[in-house]
Amino acid sequence: MTFALTVLGSNSAIPTANRNPTAHLLNVNERFFLIDCGEGTQIQLRKYRFKIQRIQRIFISHLHGDHYFGLIGLITTMQLLGREKELHIYSPEGLQRAIETQFDVSGTRLKYPVYFHSFSTQHTKKIFEDESVAVSTIPLKHGIGCCGFLFCEKPKQKNIQKEAIAQYNIPLEAIHKIKNGHDFTDENGNVIPNSELTLESHTLRSYAYCSDTCYDEKIIPLIEKVDLLFHEATFLDEMKERAKETLHSTAKQAATIAHKAGAKRLIIGHFSSRYKDIEPFMKEAKTVFENTELAIEGKKYEVRQEEINMIS
Amino acid sequence: MTFALTVLGSNSAIPTANRNPTAHLLNVNERFFLIDCGEGTQIQLRKYRFKIQRIQRIFISHLHGDHYFGLIGLITTMQLLGREKELHIYSPEGLQRAIETQFDVSGTRLKYPVYFHSFSTQHTKKIFEDESVAVSTIPLKHGIGCCGFLFCEKPKQKNIQKEAIAQYNIPLEAIHKIKNGHDFTDENGNVIPNSELTLESHTLRSYAYCSDTCYDEKIIPLIEKVDLLFHEATFLDEMKERAKETLHSTAKQAATIAHKAGAKRLIIGHFSSRYKDIEPFMKEAKTVFENTELAIEGKKYEVRQEEINMIS
Repeated sequence: MTFALTVLGSNSAIPTANRNPTAHLLNVNERFFLIDCGEGTQIQLRKYRFKIQRIQRIFISHLHGDHYFGLIGLITTMQLLGREKELHIYSPEGLQRAIETQFDVSGTRLKYPVYFHSFSTQHTKKIFEDESVAVSTIPLKHGIGCCGFLFCEKPKQKNIQKEAIAQYNIPLEAIHKIKNGHDFTDENGNVIPNSELTLESHTLRSYAYCSDTCYDEKIIPLIEKVDLLFHEATFLDEMKERAKETLHSTAKQAATIAHKAGAKRLIIGHFSSRYKDIEPFMKEAKTVFENTELAIEGKKYEVRQEEINMIS
Repeated sequence: MTFALTVLGSNSAIPTANRNPTAHLLNVNERFFLIDCGEGTQIQLRKYRFKIQRIQRIFISHLHGDHYFGLIGLITTMQLLGREKELHIYSPEGLQRAIETQFDVSGTRLKYPVYFHSFSTQHTKKIFEDESVAVSTIPLKHGIGCCGFLFCEKPKQKNIQKEAIAQYNIPLEAIHKIKNGHDFTDENGNVIPNSELTLESHTLRSYAYCSDTCYDEKIIPLIEKVDLLFHEATFLDEMKERAKETLHSTAKQAATIAHKAGAKRLIIGHFSSRYKDIEPFMKEAKTVFENTELAIEGKKYEVRQEEINMIS
């Protein structure tokens, strides 16, 4: 089961010739979630050979243009390529009007269903869930209403403990039910709870996306022990006053959040276009949180399954 | 005096990894006119090292997204870079609403003046003029209201004929006025018309941009003898039925228009993303119009001044 992030855009508001505005693509078990969609995202998707039509859900953190100006073009291209299946877009209030007005002025009618789901940026909430993953918002502190997103893998079919099969004399036909989380009732009517019979097959992986935001410790409980954390780092710490004014973060602040939250890995990005060389971001963050990586466009950040116990 | 076109985007609606949606940049005497502004245009401008803030006028042919989705990002970047000087945008009706709605949903207020000028797509009209250039619309036949643009250089200071200075005994102080187009009154009160005293210093150059359109001979009188003609060629002629259905043109049709209009040079572009190799477009167009070039992103198409007569 894949759990991998690809960075499509690593820069902040003003794109440069080689760094694009924000977009991330998360692959959870071959379902593709697009997170933010700055201008040029569809071109980045093509460049890195992703199939545009496989994206079914798009999560937009906030309505500053560098996080959504690429959405209208992506929706249009999906139409031109003959899409029929639905597309779901999650964002703060207002995005639907921005997108629909643009279709309206050109008299365009979409031939596939696009559903807009707006969320409050004030409180955390689970906004999507399927059998593989749950997505919750992470309210962030920025110039306008803004939320990050926490993607948490959900448990798959469990493994039965070999010993339990013998101990409780479990027949073959009951095993499937137990693997799906049901308890077992033995011949004597005793109910054996599922937790005594099974093991998780692997740890459940998680990814937290936190952009745009100033340094804000309130997010820590929401991202505690996350496997992979993206936290924006628009500036270096020498510009922390500018970061504060513009409600952005520095590399050091991003690393401090990662450290305090007990994150396993940190990716920093959303670099200001004033920085040609981004290596100093890495150096600065690593003074606080060693396991830091830079957001590099086209790079895949994979989170491996950690086996707890496997039964063949 | 420069008169040069740079192609920033050469593809039609669906961008590919190496061909962007439409945008052209015309430099007339160091004034920069942007013609159409598909998604990613600001990134292309940076890539080819143009100064974004030098653009003062933008001409949008029609409201299909591949011709304007990059505009909102460009306007935003101009603001982020501290622009103060005004920006003028010429387009069919509706663009202002599409742009302003997007600023509205994010509560963005522009700190520099943006003026929207809408034009009718039914009739040709001069929509802009300064001392160097005049811009007129070229109504095109497409799925929605659409106009191309004709850029015509205007006469600069004229050269006086050497013989006239002696013949009419013209004093030094009158020469400047004559060069600027005034008639001359001699000692006896005779008015000598300017045309008898001067020569144009060079031919006046012109560029016609015709995208998107089906094959339509009605445009020929409007682009007659143009120095540089861009005519869309979305398809090869083997797909002329598809071209007709979608109100686009083939390479052969573009070349036919260039030939019938007596254009000096033809650039073809707006290629469908189905074509990986665009060389066949060139080959096909050249069977009808030899002086054809392909629209290549980053390539500069210069129109040289042709001297008529020069007096030192």
